[in-house]
Amino acid sequence: MTVGGLGEDALVAAITQRLADAGPPAGVLLGPGDDAAVVAAPDGRVVATTDVLVEGRHFRRDWSSASDVGARAAAANLADVAAMGAVPTALLVGLAVPADCSLEWVLELADGLGEEASTAGAAVAGGDVVRSEVLSVSVTALGSLEGRSPVTRGGALPGDLVAVAGRLGWAAAGLAVLSRGFRSPRALVEAYRRPAPPYTEGPRASALGATAMVDVSDGLVRDLGHVAKSSGVGIGLTRAAFHVPQEFVDTARALSADPMHWLLGGGDDHALAACFPPEVDLPMAWSVVGRVEEGEGVLVDGQKWTGPTGWQAF
Amino acid sequence: MTVGGLGEDALVAAITQRLADAGPPAGVLLGPGDDAAVVAAPDGRVVATTDVLVEGRHFRRDWSSASDVGARAAAANLADVAAMGAVPTALLVGLAVPADCSLEWVLELADGLGEEASTAGAAVAGGDVVRSEVLSVSVTALGSLEGRSPVTRGGALPGDLVAVAGRLGWAAAGLAVLSRGFRSPRALVEAYRRPAPPYTEGPRASALGATAMVDVSDGLVRDLGHVAKSSGVGIGLTRAAFHVPQEFVDTARALSADPMHWLLGGGDDHALAACFPPEVDLPMAWSVVGRVEEGEGVLVDGQKWTGPTGWQAF
Repeated sequence: MTVGGLGEDALVAAITQRLADAGPPAGVLLGPGDDAAVVAAPDGRVVATTDVLVEGRHFRRDWSSASDVGARAAAANLADVAAMGAVPTALLVGLAVPADCSLEWVLELADGLGEEASTAGAAVAGGDVVRSEVLSVSVTALGSLEGRSPVTRGGALPGDLVAVAGRLGWAAAGLAVLSRGFRSPRALVEAYRRPAPPYTEGPRASALGATAMVDVSDGLVRDLGHVAKSSGVGIGLTRAAFHVPQEFVDTARALSADPMHWLLGGGDDHALAACFPPEVDLPMAWSVVGRVEEGEGVLVDGQKWTGPTGWQAF
Repeated sequence: MTVGGLGEDALVAAITQRLADAGPPAGVLLGPGDDAAVVAAPDGRVVATTDVLVEGRHFRRDWSSASDVGARAAAANLADVAAMGAVPTALLVGLAVPADCSLEWVLELADGLGEEASTAGAAVAGGDVVRSEVLSVSVTALGSLEGRSPVTRGGALPGDLVAVAGRLGWAAAGLAVLSRGFRSPRALVEAYRRPAPPYTEGPRASALGATAMVDVSDGLVRDLGHVAKSSGVGIGLTRAAFHVPQEFVDTARALSADPMHWLLGGGDDHALAACFPPEVDLPMAWSVVGRVEEGEGVLVDGQKWTGPTGWQAF
């Protein structure tokens, strides 16, 4: 059955039912079905962020399942919440869908959104479904700072360590594989299809005293460039500090690609990059990859990075 | 200049600058420019709602200015917040825009969003801009219940009065005028282009003890149908209780239309409809148009409504 064969009310009811099967959401005080949702904001503040994913630009239905698209749309936003040092609480979803899209595809998208929200401790609290010639998914994520100050991009200080939690370059490598018409190595393709952001490391970094933090969505060099600019500092990365997985080496050879381009220029894994005072004892999940310095911009082994710098929307 | 000629960072910077010109937002603790915004939620809860507007389905660039489109996208969501009895605090905006769209159009859209947010006491706190073949605007509105319980669709009781605040049918009449290729009466066309929801009446109705409330976005009969269903009651409307403006009579005659269809079936004005205990002394802004009864569905003068029942997305 296509969504065009259903009325709006029936479609919304089907999605709401599917999401309700995921179980009761802890921080959602009033869920889908009214004019608006009500979400807990225990410390009197709410963190909020929005991202839009458009078919053909951010995903392809032949490369990702509906559930993967939903999970990825959720992850992109949940990671932004984590990057403020906050714990995700709720998602709102605006879905624009062609009339010939199947109901099953939309329900599986809802599954993916709900699953990823649940992984991060959140739930889908509400949304809107409209018809459009182009399929797009707009997600807003909300989160709680649990009494802490938000960790912005603007607090890095010279002398701070720069560290990363989560995978870097895996999604970019997977995308490169898919773009060449391959379906393996499976681990890379799966990393592209379903990112695994280190959600709990955001609040943890905040509690450890992180001075600045960012979600790596556009590539490490570019995203750290935002930190450098906002903080009025330079950032020096050390190439040798990055572990290059064997899958990267093998796949890069097969595709005549440079694995460092994936590591430093690839987005979509939604790793977290943060700056910490040098005396901080970092947990295992964090790898030190550089230092904050006086100056501006991001250098790799003292040189300007000449590889790709990630995603450009326009 | 088209947005396709700008990088993403430059486009976001231009929009953020334009919004910043609107002045400092009261409830926005951290505005655009980081991974996420931080918005005040003074009573430990946040009201949140999302709507998506798609070009060709929800607006046309030849019928509405960019500023009007922005204002209408904001109003649709701000009214949903008010319909919970909450005061709007912030908007997040996801904009999908074709590369050939002019920068000026996008900046004027931001103006409209900011102006309408400001009218409701809120501000734009963040957003995302992506490229798409189809222009769409996804808005999430946040709001504060100020310690009150949310007014849902589910609390109406037999014997309650049904009352309406704000305009009914004006936008539908204006849309009918535009659809026939006319540009006047001006008052109707302007009502379509820029709705004026009675934002402050939402919290006021809540404080007066409203038992149920809804934003009239799809037409009064259809939206009250949601209240009847959620509350497990019937709603009886009285035709004679609706004032039919002279503009409606004249324009309906010219277009061979029925003005009651606009009043009872027209959405997009974002009036508020609420149920109140019969003893409540209603302020001037509210007109009683019917009663909550035992039963189900919505009747007009005891009859099933056979006119149009508003917008269907699919």
